[in-house]
Amino acid sequence: MRMCENLPRRSMMTTQEVADKLVALCSEGKFPEAMELYSPDIVSMEAGAPPGESREAKGLAAVKAKGEWWNTNHEVHSVKVEGPLVAGAHFAVTFKMDVTFKPQGKRIAMQEVAVYKVADGKIVYEEFFYAM
Amino acid sequence: MRMCENLPRRSMMTTQEVADKLVALCSEGKFPEAMELYSPDIVSMEAGAPPGESREAKGLAAVKAKGEWWNTNHEVHSVKVEGPLVAGAHFAVTFKMDVTFKPQGKRIAMQEVAVYKVADGKIVYEEFFYAM
Repeated sequence: MRMCENLPRRSMMTTQEVADKLVALCSEGKFPEAMELYSPDIVSMEAGAPPGESREAKGLAAVKAKGEWWNTNHEVHSVKVEGPLVAGAHFAVTFKMDVTFKPQGKRIAMQEVAVYKVADGKIVYEEFFYAM
Repeated sequence: MRMCENLPRRSMMTTQEVADKLVALCSEGKFPEAMELYSPDIVSMEAGAPPGESREAKGLAAVKAKGEWWNTNHEVHSVKVEGPLVAGAHFAVTFKMDVTFKPQGKRIAMQEVAVYKVADGKIVYEEFFYAM
């Protein structure tokens, strides 16, 4: 069965397909829907964290909770997603967002590079790069 | 003098300019020349390292030594650089290279995402993402 193990499963998305889908969903502000592309074992890494907190969120429940906190606390005025650039199992995009951080009523121009890793058709790792 | 401190120096390259220059030089295989874009305090992070070795090289001398080892041990048949995607102080590119690892005479199709951070017109951080 060794030969068969190396054949891609018909239903499994390629890195390019996952990347294109993520860009399409995020461009429309459909961040919760984009999480359907994530593996249960997703690891999500921020550029930094407040003192005593971790940069890393592990597992779909933790990453969804982080996303829900973000969605609850930000009003999104516009989203621009550029890319993807795809190389093997990895891809990169940029996010440029005009948001208001609701607790402070503060409007922010966010810019970040995001890198993703895909395994078995699902996103297993994401890391965000932005100025602290 | 506070106002002046925040003015960009005329000779300082923007993130976009550094990114475009890096892509232009690397596309021509001019990897040593690309290192002129690096800060003396450059930190370079590989996706992984052999047991007992570090993923991280710190300082221009260490990063140049890593580059020289690479250039000495690889014959480059072709290089394709895609990008850059620029967001604030960061940018991402992909490298797709057809190389022969000379010590083993082994031809390899390398694919990686690279993320860079620019400060004061110089690259201060680079990280590579590829399958191990």
